[in-house]
Amino acid sequence: MKLLEERILKDGVIKPGNVLKVDSFLNHQIDVPFIAKLGEEFKRLYADTPVTKILTIESSGIGIASVAAMYFNVPVVFAKKASGSNMDKDVYFTRIYSYTHNKVNEVVVSKRFISPEDKVLIIDDFLANGCALEGLVEIVRQAGGTVAGIGIAIEKGFQGGGDKLRASGIRVESLAIIEKMDSQSKTIEFR
Amino acid sequence: MKLLEERILKDGVIKPGNVLKVDSFLNHQIDVPFIAKLGEEFKRLYADTPVTKILTIESSGIGIASVAAMYFNVPVVFAKKASGSNMDKDVYFTRIYSYTHNKVNEVVVSKRFISPEDKVLIIDDFLANGCALEGLVEIVRQAGGTVAGIGIAIEKGFQGGGDKLRASGIRVESLAIIEKMDSQSKTIEFR
Repeated sequence: MKLLEERILKDGVIKPGNVLKVDSFLNHQIDVPFIAKLGEEFKRLYADTPVTKILTIESSGIGIASVAAMYFNVPVVFAKKASGSNMDKDVYFTRIYSYTHNKVNEVVVSKRFISPEDKVLIIDDFLANGCALEGLVEIVRQAGGTVAGIGIAIEKGFQGGGDKLRASGIRVESLAIIEKMDSQSKTIEFR
Repeated sequence: MKLLEERILKDGVIKPGNVLKVDSFLNHQIDVPFIAKLGEEFKRLYADTPVTKILTIESSGIGIASVAAMYFNVPVVFAKKASGSNMDKDVYFTRIYSYTHNKVNEVVVSKRFISPEDKVLIIDDFLANGCALEGLVEIVRQAGGTVAGIGIAIEKGFQGGGDKLRASGIRVESLAIIEKMDSQSKTIEFR
């Protein structure tokens, strides 16, 4: 998606270690009028696919998933990092390794919110190695639901997580796929 | 707001210790088509108030703030619980006590995202003792910005946080204010 690639080139900051900071519009400040255009694009891409629910993971997926849900007219469920004292005991559960924070998060979704009838579109801000997405797919499968597809704002193509998911037969639509980035020359190449 | 009160009576679950669970539509599953009506109502209430930015706190505020931002046509900034390894060092910072998790969270907002020119509407899903909201007000003040007001889905009026904020001169609009709730008789009285 041209619009998103241009925004990444304009406002993204490349840090050493293949870190791309887009916190001015995607995951600390959320430029909602702009993100709305991404939500609309997900709806265009998945126009012919039945979707009953959008699944994401806290925290940075919630904004883009909620805005996208305005176009799909469905509820959002967000997977929670287990810790809440008034969290349901009856949950789907998986472990997700976070490279950003170098730790394993235990992630839960209440069994009340995904059922075998659900056709679930998984939305997140980033896809890199794919650990978070694999965890969310696992949760939909525990529920007996169907993964309608995955919608990602920014995929780091060179980290391979997206292609692994595609090879497993899941439809993955990323609005911008970075093939190569370099913090010294400050250049980004898109797929 | 009648619509929200009815939804609380229909789907809210009262637990001992004045806990109201509304995770089926507000803060685990987010019923976005429904939450959109709350966003529209915030816009109606603050129609005459200039708002340049919406501020909330992760995680459960992000959904309602992002949906409301669709009506205000402004960005959302969400305060982060400090821990991220690629978090900016140049941040506004405060401590917020969480009764739910019985711990103090260090909460940060990058200085790049609130400026003295900003008129900030603070939005959150719940207001009880007011600690989280006081922390967000404090962050806006550190930035030299103006608090345009506060918009809350559900206020627990009997815990006093909302009235304390109002007494301090801040406009607080809560779409449903619970005056009394009882887990034995399963009754809720609204203000």
